[in-house]
Amino acid sequence: MKSWFNSRSLVNKADLDRIYKYEKFSDSLWLYPEHVLSHWESTDKYIDIPEEVNRVYNMLGRPTPITRAKELEEYLGTDCKIFFKREDLLPNGSFKISSAIPQAYFGSIEGRKEVITETGAGQTGVAASLASCLFHMKSTIFMVRSSFNQKPLRRKLMEVYGSKVYPSPSEITQYGKQQLAMGNDSGSIAKATSEVFEVLSKIDNGMNIAGSLLDFTLTYNSVIGLESIAQLKEMGIKADTVIGCVGGGSSFGGLAVPFIDLCDSTEIIATESAAIPTLTKGEYKYDYADGEGESNPLLMYSLGHQYQPSHMHASGLRYHAASPIISYLVHKKRIRPVAYDEEISMKSAIQLSRLESFLVSPESSYTIQAVMETAKTYHGTGKVILALVTGCGHLDLDAYGKFIRDED
Amino acid sequence: MKSWFNSRSLVNKADLDRIYKYEKFSDSLWLYPEHVLSHWESTDKYIDIPEEVNRVYNMLGRPTPITRAKELEEYLGTDCKIFFKREDLLPNGSFKISSAIPQAYFGSIEGRKEVITETGAGQTGVAASLASCLFHMKSTIFMVRSSFNQKPLRRKLMEVYGSKVYPSPSEITQYGKQQLAMGNDSGSIAKATSEVFEVLSKIDNGMNIAGSLLDFTLTYNSVIGLESIAQLKEMGIKADTVIGCVGGGSSFGGLAVPFIDLCDSTEIIATESAAIPTLTKGEYKYDYADGEGESNPLLMYSLGHQYQPSHMHASGLRYHAASPIISYLVHKKRIRPVAYDEEISMKSAIQLSRLESFLVSPESSYTIQAVMETAKTYHGTGKVILALVTGCGHLDLDAYGKFIRDED
Repeated sequence: MKSWFNSRSLVNKADLDRIYKYEKFSDSLWLYPEHVLSHWESTDKYIDIPEEVNRVYNMLGRPTPITRAKELEEYLGTDCKIFFKREDLLPNGSFKISSAIPQAYFGSIEGRKEVITETGAGQTGVAASLASCLFHMKSTIFMVRSSFNQKPLRRKLMEVYGSKVYPSPSEITQYGKQQLAMGNDSGSIAKATSEVFEVLSKIDNGMNIAGSLLDFTLTYNSVIGLESIAQLKEMGIKADTVIGCVGGGSSFGGLAVPFIDLCDSTEIIATESAAIPTLTKGEYKYDYADGEGESNPLLMYSLGHQYQPSHMHASGLRYHAASPIISYLVHKKRIRPVAYDEEISMKSAIQLSRLESFLVSPESSYTIQAVMETAKTYHGTGKVILALVTGCGHLDLDAYGKFIRDED
Repeated sequence: MKSWFNSRSLVNKADLDRIYKYEKFSDSLWLYPEHVLSHWESTDKYIDIPEEVNRVYNMLGRPTPITRAKELEEYLGTDCKIFFKREDLLPNGSFKISSAIPQAYFGSIEGRKEVITETGAGQTGVAASLASCLFHMKSTIFMVRSSFNQKPLRRKLMEVYGSKVYPSPSEITQYGKQQLAMGNDSGSIAKATSEVFEVLSKIDNGMNIAGSLLDFTLTYNSVIGLESIAQLKEMGIKADTVIGCVGGGSSFGGLAVPFIDLCDSTEIIATESAAIPTLTKGEYKYDYADGEGESNPLLMYSLGHQYQPSHMHASGLRYHAASPIISYLVHKKRIRPVAYDEEISMKSAIQLSRLESFLVSPESSYTIQAVMETAKTYHGTGKVILALVTGCGHLDLDAYGKFIRDED
């Protein structure tokens, strides 16, 4: 892969100005490397991938395989052809590394020495840890305290990769201490972000690694979609339907955006959890990216920045809004969103593992459910369905344990 | 891959008779499918892989990739070329599935309906579960109770694949109840095996899936070595040194045996844990395969069937003896065994993850340590080293947590 596909290039200038009416990129200069910000602001269709980033992508196992799910097809009794793009095979266990790598690389060539990042259940944190150590940078991760306590494995994987991991709210920032003093100890991404900003403001040469939402994360993840198009082409086929899940939207954008530009007739389906139905029931409006209402508002689908979903296992989908680019494409009806309940989705993911051997992350269980429904609905058409597996479910086996059917 | 390489074909008739002096294959007829027993008894060099088994191998991701470890080479300052054969990328997390698949397949075509198998820390159990569900067989796993309690993730993965998993000693066999009544509740592989035999003896159409030790497990795993030879050939290179770890010996045999026959000049190194130094400090003698002394004795390296190692994290290496074929080849000095301490090995595996991004299973940490030492020793020769990664370390993160260096 020689270039990333720039997610912004799908939006015209007037609409971009409207989406980013309140955003000032210069506000973020201290947080992100200049190369990253220049890619964020760019409207060029393609952005060159540096040779060194490509080398690391290859080392990690990119291009990730596309596998055909013939057992699933047979089980569903459909003549559709089902393919999965397998980001679960990456060494950190999810797609997240493909955006973390360029962020760390550009930081390292610009002299940034330390990564300070927030994480919820840990997938962004693990990717940031690995990316940091591959480019010889120190890393500190503020992990939402409830996950820090309940999901120790991803925390340990970050430590294996050399990160210092703190539960947030932590004792090492003023903000964290205030929160703890007020009895707010379970934490949230917004609070962890506040701690990250406090630490970054006090050091030189630090940087943040963004996990999702921001356009450049979609752009860097576009290797997913570009690889898929090339891999399918090599097999002599085209995708009629492409399916992925949306939390912040970075894996989905990475998958869908190149298809939208390069494959006019491909149907694009975004799956989400009915517990947090941003794209299916949210409003297209200006809202804050963070939970506290302190950032500049963005035009996007949102359930309101203070929306609190009920408990759900797919922590990566637990976000009140969705990427401005994805929101725009849903608003323009180029992407069709669907929402599913957790139980049916997790059970479908278990069923898939029994047919095709691999267990997807809880986030991708919604995609599996959509694949099953779509392949049944489209039976008789012989359509080609490509679905994105965003991660591996092995570190989420506790969650799956709750959905194993009684009859088994 | 069209054929397996038969591990027995490396041993001449007289030596085979000596090794198996006390063995009666007919004793095992009720445990294993007839095809499996015929492969066990065969001395043909190659055994055909059925088309259906090949199809499933491909579905699982075989051939597994070989990756070059350039960052490790640079870190070590060696001009050796280091390659890893990556069984960690299989969906069950280890090489074990490649032997479980043919066993389940042959059972299914012979009308066996149910798999009953024992497992320690769970890698054999997970492979047996997955193989069973892929061939539409029920499965019941007796998991050593101490692991059942302390390592719930592999248990949950077996349940995801549809297995019924019991802690052994269990309440569902006479033997288990007796053990529990005597206060023997932590369990062992030998005790779990006794429970498996009791259940199998009471049902029709059941079968066992063997995890290691027996020649046919090495033979079925020979896809590892055969693929490696073909993959290196495609890159235009040959391995000067091949390294793998030995517990029972099934992954190591699968790797090494084809090299020994097809690549005369290749050096073969077997790694083991200094906590259970079977090949480096054991005696070459007739001993029992099980801990209770109830099986037919086999000629192999052994520390004595009642040997109890101190606590160790690499449960897959926790076995008092080693495969008769591997033992024979060590005795003949065709394989050179080396033993390493746990701490240095686990830390080397952590270091590797920071360089090359993937975390190996604790069993393979001994191989990583051997690779590091060998590549330094051979600096200046430009030799090609191929090492086997038997599994992924993500479900062993608890163990790795204990070895993260204080200075980090």
